[in-house]
Amino acid sequence: MALTDIRALAFDLFGTVVDWREGVAREAVRLLGEGVDGHALASRWRAGYQPALEAVRSGARGWVDIDVLNREVLVEILPEFGLTGLPGATLDELNLAWRRLDPWPDAVEGLTRLRERFIIAPVSNAHIALVVDMSRRGGLVWDAILGAQVSGGYKPQAQVYDDAARLLGLAPHQVLMVASHPGDLAGAAGRGLRTAYVHRPTEYGRELPRPAPGTFDIHIDGFVELAQRLGA
Amino acid sequence: MALTDIRALAFDLFGTVVDWREGVAREAVRLLGEGVDGHALASRWRAGYQPALEAVRSGARGWVDIDVLNREVLVEILPEFGLTGLPGATLDELNLAWRRLDPWPDAVEGLTRLRERFIIAPVSNAHIALVVDMSRRGGLVWDAILGAQVSGGYKPQAQVYDDAARLLGLAPHQVLMVASHPGDLAGAAGRGLRTAYVHRPTEYGRELPRPAPGTFDIHIDGFVELAQRLGA
Repeated sequence: MALTDIRALAFDLFGTVVDWREGVAREAVRLLGEGVDGHALASRWRAGYQPALEAVRSGARGWVDIDVLNREVLVEILPEFGLTGLPGATLDELNLAWRRLDPWPDAVEGLTRLRERFIIAPVSNAHIALVVDMSRRGGLVWDAILGAQVSGGYKPQAQVYDDAARLLGLAPHQVLMVASHPGDLAGAAGRGLRTAYVHRPTEYGRELPRPAPGTFDIHIDGFVELAQRLGA
Repeated sequence: MALTDIRALAFDLFGTVVDWREGVAREAVRLLGEGVDGHALASRWRAGYQPALEAVRSGARGWVDIDVLNREVLVEILPEFGLTGLPGATLDELNLAWRRLDPWPDAVEGLTRLRERFIIAPVSNAHIALVVDMSRRGGLVWDAILGAQVSGGYKPQAQVYDDAARLLGLAPHQVLMVASHPGDLAGAAGRGLRTAYVHRPTEYGRELPRPAPGTFDIHIDGFVELAQRLGA
């Protein structure tokens, strides 16, 4: 498929640009002690994320940001790890782990190259304040921050993808959604965006299956490869 | 007044960061010919801007972006310059003049220094697509794009200033509004933001009066001076 008219790249963040599992595990051990299995806690916390988003998507509750949702999930899961009665300040600090995530090794170089040629923006379920903090810490430079908060919904809700094009003044086919999650890309494709699947084999600490070749417009292993593929 | 707890700087754009008058005049002459008084057209066009915004602020019409409003004003004023029957494509191209504005000479250096220490974001009446294009052209790097479009109103409406803090997860007094227009700063101060007045003497092609010292938290002549004042 010709991709010559792409003008902007829309990036998922958690798992696609940054490594949430290692970052959350590191913060969990730092704040809760060496006795905690940080990776297990990170995975369990992340597993509670989609159901929490679903409550907003379904309309069961109004739009709230993922600081609120993540903290609620954290309180729910800590007893599973034998952790009870922790001070609220510790939970608040641990909740900030989601802003203290390192970019994958190829991310900054790839994004820097891609930004020379394309508009780049996160189109994530993270809210603006989180993206700003995480990006400043990690050296990620964006042209704009789009996504859940400006669209008042959570991916894969249609308005988040629609706004990625509309708010940049572009047609959907001029926007390439870049994500490591097939469901996110399927949502984007359903709204007319182009799709790039990036394989992040250790996102969940185990090798994930690759989608069949041709499932998405582009399949890559990182952002430097994406830059090469797009001539940036 | 102590300004030690400022975390973010919110920037007006037209007149404050970029020189709209010279840029619009240049584009007008380029597209309409040497016979046009570009500066007069720029000033007249700009004079129609606030009444157009007011129709949205008052609720007389729903929120529309300034591409729409600027083009309507342009069509209204061209006959005053003896220009009628211009092709729509010429008007569309001329309307893009508002994306082709050069930053004031101190802007890029000042913003670059300020961004090392503070979150910086435009809080402008321009919409995201315009800001992205103008910023990429001019080498302006932001942490986020806030302002009219994400807030669904036009300055000095309260929600635009309120959102400048809320969307960054900050209290209003942690945000410094930077503008060359006293009315904009008065609006920001009314919502609890700190204020920095930057004097842009040639914005309207004539020396503007300076507000009395102490009217705003900081009075400066450019962004490099602002960086010095804030220790950035």
